[in-house]
Amino acid sequence: MKAAESALKHIKPGVRSVAPYTLRQLEAPIKLNQNESPYDVPAELKQRLWERLAQRPWNRYPPFVPADLTAAVAEAVDWPTEGILLGNGSNELIQALLATVIEPGRSVVVPEPTFTLYRLLTQVGGGSVVPAPLDESLRFDVSGIVAAAARNQATAIVLCTPNNPTGTALTREEIEAIHDGSDALIVLDQAYVEFGGYDAVPLLKDRPRLLILRTLSKAMSLAGLRAGYMLGHPALVREIGKAKLPYNVNFVTESVAAEVLRHRELLVPNQEAIRVQRDRLFDGLGRLHGLHVFPTAANFVLFRVEAGELDHRAVFQRLLEDHGVLVRDVSGYPMLQGCLRVTAGTPEETGAFLEAMAEVMKGGVDRRQSTVNS
Amino acid sequence: MKAAESALKHIKPGVRSVAPYTLRQLEAPIKLNQNESPYDVPAELKQRLWERLAQRPWNRYPPFVPADLTAAVAEAVDWPTEGILLGNGSNELIQALLATVIEPGRSVVVPEPTFTLYRLLTQVGGGSVVPAPLDESLRFDVSGIVAAAARNQATAIVLCTPNNPTGTALTREEIEAIHDGSDALIVLDQAYVEFGGYDAVPLLKDRPRLLILRTLSKAMSLAGLRAGYMLGHPALVREIGKAKLPYNVNFVTESVAAEVLRHRELLVPNQEAIRVQRDRLFDGLGRLHGLHVFPTAANFVLFRVEAGELDHRAVFQRLLEDHGVLVRDVSGYPMLQGCLRVTAGTPEETGAFLEAMAEVMKGGVDRRQSTVNS
Repeated sequence: MKAAESALKHIKPGVRSVAPYTLRQLEAPIKLNQNESPYDVPAELKQRLWERLAQRPWNRYPPFVPADLTAAVAEAVDWPTEGILLGNGSNELIQALLATVIEPGRSVVVPEPTFTLYRLLTQVGGGSVVPAPLDESLRFDVSGIVAAAARNQATAIVLCTPNNPTGTALTREEIEAIHDGSDALIVLDQAYVEFGGYDAVPLLKDRPRLLILRTLSKAMSLAGLRAGYMLGHPALVREIGKAKLPYNVNFVTESVAAEVLRHRELLVPNQEAIRVQRDRLFDGLGRLHGLHVFPTAANFVLFRVEAGELDHRAVFQRLLEDHGVLVRDVSGYPMLQGCLRVTAGTPEETGAFLEAMAEVMKGGVDRRQSTVNS
Repeated sequence: MKAAESALKHIKPGVRSVAPYTLRQLEAPIKLNQNESPYDVPAELKQRLWERLAQRPWNRYPPFVPADLTAAVAEAVDWPTEGILLGNGSNELIQALLATVIEPGRSVVVPEPTFTLYRLLTQVGGGSVVPAPLDESLRFDVSGIVAAAARNQATAIVLCTPNNPTGTALTREEIEAIHDGSDALIVLDQAYVEFGGYDAVPLLKDRPRLLILRTLSKAMSLAGLRAGYMLGHPALVREIGKAKLPYNVNFVTESVAAEVLRHRELLVPNQEAIRVQRDRLFDGLGRLHGLHVFPTAANFVLFRVEAGELDHRAVFQRLLEDHGVLVRDVSGYPMLQGCLRVTAGTPEETGAFLEAMAEVMKGGVDRRQSTVNS
């Protein structure tokens, strides 16, 4: 094939310099690396859905306005339909938002470490990212965020709360302080809010600069379907909707997501079980020597491996190879040297992980001693 | 709710001035307004798919790289997997492309009239659109396109071929002439190519500036699922992939689209039947007085109502109210005053439309005569 320089010269320099979002894809019997729910959608719900999905003509476009899912969201969160935008995961909506506000010369304040997509999409849009580092305990630095926004006349502040990959959450008062201390759009990604942290929907009504992103990929067991939504002032949502593609949500996602939202009480026991396992992870990891465990409001726990020469890479690898447990290596994020992230699984999965960790860390201590002795 | 001015001031001026993509949603027994296939996916294919879909855990993310669908596309079009990008309809891929190349100061040449999304997305990205009008017969003006690109040092030329909503297609020689006469990226949206016009895949190999978009929404009967793909030089596709969201295609779309592509020979008789009905529409409309019918290579026919005081709005309305047939009013596009677009349906639907048109146009002529007599 011919070289592509004649084509690549048209790519914006900001895009060429950015690294793509990638994930090393590994398989394991116990999968605790993507913050998914360990619980599938109940089989009877699937069967009931299928009867409707099979009859619906697949050759026809989804409705131009996905009224059924929008109504289900409106009912679930008590927010008017005109202030709701639907996407294939909330990612698609943060993309639409940034497409409508970012251009060269504009900036977005993003705490660090956080979900990497905010930075990537801001840079693709030609904007600049102003990082606002978390403090040493990985809590949000509220005054630092406000100062960074003011200093840069930021267009937006994107806050993931509870934060991925740290688990840290903002309180109501902190959200209000950031909002009131700034002129920017305040975007709250609340993908994990069913597991803890303040649910900011009540703040929306009097704050037209506030936007909330929610997803059905985590607590609602629909990671495979990719459904998310944005809540905001109808006038703002209308503008952001211009950057959203028509028919973006297909009829399967629309039907399944609406059905799951309407039967969301069926998922509450699962969410409660996940919180219990999350707390068990925090306690269990805290009892092991050589680890620092961070408090969390999400369905995962972040911990740092501090056990001398047994580094996080070795822990990751032994968990995977010797115990079939896959966690996420997040050590590449700013401030997270030596850190791994583990998702709360079923009681069995969580138990298997904790036993494996106890063995791996014991091995590490043993090896250190034997090294000292040799 | 409070006024939203404090939020709206952050929206880029280019976005606020643009009109959103909208569609007046109407229902009718005979739906010939969206260029869909009239044929559903065969029931046995649906059932076989369901057995797989129901078993797959819905709570797990789709694969990071949708290898199965990518392989199915590669096999179907004979192009390497590294040069393939998958999306929720091809719209998502033109969005990703424009996000990686458009910024203020850059321009895109777009023939007019054509699919409106190219203009909308270019403007959202802060770029400018250089229109290249079709000629009076609604054929592409090849030298006009080349000149417009040169004059504006265009970043990209977006060509829908066969073109929506006119049906016009570019020949191989014309595509080569536009490519060789310009420095820009040449984007061919070939959503309708199964129905006619030159299929440009053979041109890709030696032309790294060429990109082809294809969809499964039309000839492949999957409008409801929203699946499309982009073909191009791997190095270019890699850059465009940075603006595509991870996990954008859900597991249902991936499985269904791959299965349909692998059994695409099952859909060939449907495509042949649609072409027959398309030709029948062209001939049948051509026999009616008061219409001008444009030649087409797609699965639809564009025609202008020229019958004096019976204008296109009256024709549209009578078709809908008296005959239950929904067509598309495309009279708002540049150069398409008085024009309607009708999709080829089943033989029964197409026959019903032609009979209805004969009656409507006869009524129109009668009324004109009675007006003259009164």
